[in-house]
Amino acid sequence: MLKPAASARKVSPARYDDALPKLRTNLLNAHFRLREQKFPLIIIVSGADGAGKGELVQRLNEWLDPRGVKTHAFWNPSDEERERPEYWRFWRALPPAGRMGILFGSWYTEPIIKRVMHKLKGRRFETALDRIVAFEKMLTDEGAVILKLWLHLPKPAQKTRLKKMEKEGRIAPDDWKHYKLYDRFTKVSGQALAHTDTATAPWHIIDASDRRHRELTAGRLLLNTLQARLKLAALPKVKTVTAADLVAAVPTAKAAPARKVSSVLGKVDLTQKLTAVEYEKQLAHEQVRLSKLAWAAYEKKRSMILVFEGWDAGGKGSAIRRLTQAMDPRLYNVVGIAAPTDEERAQHYLWRFWRHLPRAGMSTIFDRSWYGRVLVERVEHFATPAQWGRAYGEIAEFEAQLAEPGNMVHKFWIHISPEEQLRRFKERQTVAYKQYKITDEDWRNREKWPDYALAVDEMVEQTDVPTAPWTLVAGNDKKFARVQIVRTIAQRLEETL
Amino acid sequence: MLKPAASARKVSPARYDDALPKLRTNLLNAHFRLREQKFPLIIIVSGADGAGKGELVQRLNEWLDPRGVKTHAFWNPSDEERERPEYWRFWRALPPAGRMGILFGSWYTEPIIKRVMHKLKGRRFETALDRIVAFEKMLTDEGAVILKLWLHLPKPAQKTRLKKMEKEGRIAPDDWKHYKLYDRFTKVSGQALAHTDTATAPWHIIDASDRRHRELTAGRLLLNTLQARLKLAALPKVKTVTAADLVAAVPTAKAAPARKVSSVLGKVDLTQKLTAVEYEKQLAHEQVRLSKLAWAAYEKKRSMILVFEGWDAGGKGSAIRRLTQAMDPRLYNVVGIAAPTDEERAQHYLWRFWRHLPRAGMSTIFDRSWYGRVLVERVEHFATPAQWGRAYGEIAEFEAQLAEPGNMVHKFWIHISPEEQLRRFKERQTVAYKQYKITDEDWRNREKWPDYALAVDEMVEQTDVPTAPWTLVAGNDKKFARVQIVRTIAQRLEETL
Repeated sequence: MLKPAASARKVSPARYDDALPKLRTNLLNAHFRLREQKFPLIIIVSGADGAGKGELVQRLNEWLDPRGVKTHAFWNPSDEERERPEYWRFWRALPPAGRMGILFGSWYTEPIIKRVMHKLKGRRFETALDRIVAFEKMLTDEGAVILKLWLHLPKPAQKTRLKKMEKEGRIAPDDWKHYKLYDRFTKVSGQALAHTDTATAPWHIIDASDRRHRELTAGRLLLNTLQARLKLAALPKVKTVTAADLVAAVPTAKAAPARKVSSVLGKVDLTQKLTAVEYEKQLAHEQVRLSKLAWAAYEKKRSMILVFEGWDAGGKGSAIRRLTQAMDPRLYNVVGIAAPTDEERAQHYLWRFWRHLPRAGMSTIFDRSWYGRVLVERVEHFATPAQWGRAYGEIAEFEAQLAEPGNMVHKFWIHISPEEQLRRFKERQTVAYKQYKITDEDWRNREKWPDYALAVDEMVEQTDVPTAPWTLVAGNDKKFARVQIVRTIAQRLEETL
Repeated sequence: MLKPAASARKVSPARYDDALPKLRTNLLNAHFRLREQKFPLIIIVSGADGAGKGELVQRLNEWLDPRGVKTHAFWNPSDEERERPEYWRFWRALPPAGRMGILFGSWYTEPIIKRVMHKLKGRRFETALDRIVAFEKMLTDEGAVILKLWLHLPKPAQKTRLKKMEKEGRIAPDDWKHYKLYDRFTKVSGQALAHTDTATAPWHIIDASDRRHRELTAGRLLLNTLQARLKLAALPKVKTVTAADLVAAVPTAKAAPARKVSSVLGKVDLTQKLTAVEYEKQLAHEQVRLSKLAWAAYEKKRSMILVFEGWDAGGKGSAIRRLTQAMDPRLYNVVGIAAPTDEERAQHYLWRFWRHLPRAGMSTIFDRSWYGRVLVERVEHFATPAQWGRAYGEIAEFEAQLAEPGNMVHKFWIHISPEEQLRRFKERQTVAYKQYKITDEDWRNREKWPDYALAVDEMVEQTDVPTAPWTLVAGNDKKFARVQIVRTIAQRLEETL
């Protein structure tokens, strides 16, 4: 099943750049429509070491709506996992209806590796594969969609890739060991793929030699799979903003004084910027630095808990992506905070954050956070003054506990000016694949800018402590903001370790 | 704070028996009303070793609606727990709104034990206690009710108790070690209690020398706390059954043939019974046996997964209580299966069972289970024939995975005759503290007896395998049924270990 291709398939930069915008728009639209559906989509990313699985996982995360997708890397099982049936950890990771789960490593990993290492007899290997077939069938029977991607890499290409990764400090401990077993790995994987290539959960083998080819192919496969399942219904309606909306939302005189009241935000120098050249150079430098530090933190069992808050359209999502580009997907988890589930609603408001805390050495990145209590809940009167008033103390205690075992807690407020926000809102209307990002709520929030500014001020003053500091990011220039964030994290991590 | 009482407070058996029915009725009614509320109730059971904490926890479980209460024993932390801030495990265990959580051991245990063992300096002990005060305040601020019970035992009484427990095989490894530190333990506990005795979460110190005294006192404290919080609103209305309901529900001729069709259930000899004397003797014997076996299973890291299904009013709940009486509350968890939460509804139907699987050496007792798929969902047409049809295979695969690591999977169907069910339904109307158990749905289900009988037949035929067998329990005589269940589990466990 895994035969070397006669010649590697390549996509030129020009063709890639040409195809990408349309693919991203369609993917996002389809992903957005998935939300309304009663089925989950499971993406399995498997394949040879160095074939770019991690990179592909990152790319998919970049292309999709981060609030609707969760990546699970199956790695060191915990004792809670080891002490339960093998599949318990997979069940734990299954996405709910309307969401995507990207599985980096999966139920295929252990049988294949064990078989390669001769730790599993042929007969028992087949039993393990039968179990997989039954498991996937059970999921698809109930409506789940499973997209299985296998990144295939010819032997010489793998060697080149591993060397490059080693130089960049991105190599995992077992990678070279596996390379020596290339032929056996290819044979065993081929058997596994053939055995588990079913009508309802087929394998897609992607020639992974060329980055652009493998990314476009994976993206298109995902899009086709999703669209087929969505039965090619008409594209969803995107909110159209009228001229009246725009006029109504332009900051009026009443918004201006509030910005002067704001003592904290007023100090942020929003004129700071970087040229494209400075940006590329500095970002690359900080990302390589962070990449190594993240592995060092893992080895020392130190975790990061990072919080991102900021104005709508401030660039939280794209900043988080620049950050996660620098980290192995096995080391972090991005948690987007939206409306609570009913299980969460039935608990103390901090409960839903506790449940996402990372294991030692791993990190959690919160896209919005417990600060909602003193921001949106305060401004919208969802919480009483007594409730948000005491939240400062509750949050201080919570973060003290997070930091206690030697973990790094860091919080970012991405600041932009109201004028810049308006410019971005308008832009989002015109760029197709950004339209899903703008909602009525964004416009309503914008009208409450002065209230939010006051709340942010007080929040920073009340909760900026050395063990869990706030960094106010100058966000008018996205390039400057992204570098500032990655650099701040790298610096603080360096000091912490 | 913990001074020896001049003389132990005692309650005579007569006074106990006299007070109990009213207490239980009121407790159940109050518990039932809690369901509708937007706050949780947290019961902390702490105190000296051998003071009867475990027994009290069991008694409370016996008195309350098992579907609305969950016991958490804080014991060996898992590495997932150890790798996160100390309080993560407590957050994990907090009951949601409308429910009770009984915490056997709590955030008090570690600071007190460490301080007794001189592993915590006085200053840091106080910091730990401050953290507790802040934590409890945070919970009560948001509406939680915390009932803190401290079972106090004079030194000579503790010695007597530990000896008795040792004889019965119910002693935990550290108990004697702690006894030698009695005076220091009493002093440190006293400090902890004084420091954390707050207006919103006060301590209640119970003289634990006499079982009946401590149980009644704890029960009354719980009742008072609950009623005070429920603001002594009028007792909820209990469904009243009319004569017409009874007539309508009497099994008619159409029910009779179905029982003959039933090949599996027809073989159960429902005339089997035990006298009260036989029952007491045999149950006690089997419980002691099971108690020791459960500890042996724990040491060998073998788990039990027990499933209880049966006709409404078949006696599942009371049978489970006889079973759990024999087990240390740290070793098991009872999971009552009712309507799924929205997080559960968004997943494959087996997901909600996977999440409750026990760690190695622990056990989970399911009060209703995944068999709902082929019983109620089949009969009520919530699942399509294709869905419940393939469920047999899915369940077989699931149970095979459960049994694989050497765990014991056992399933019970408690069978009663339609006549006996009717007798019990009527009884439930007349005994006040049983009224909450009977609902309109029970009467509706009763009318579908023949459909259920067919479904049960097929279920047992399809899923009765040596690694996960069904036991059909003759339930017309509750005494016989309870002994049969405890004995079956003890026997099978003995064979398994």
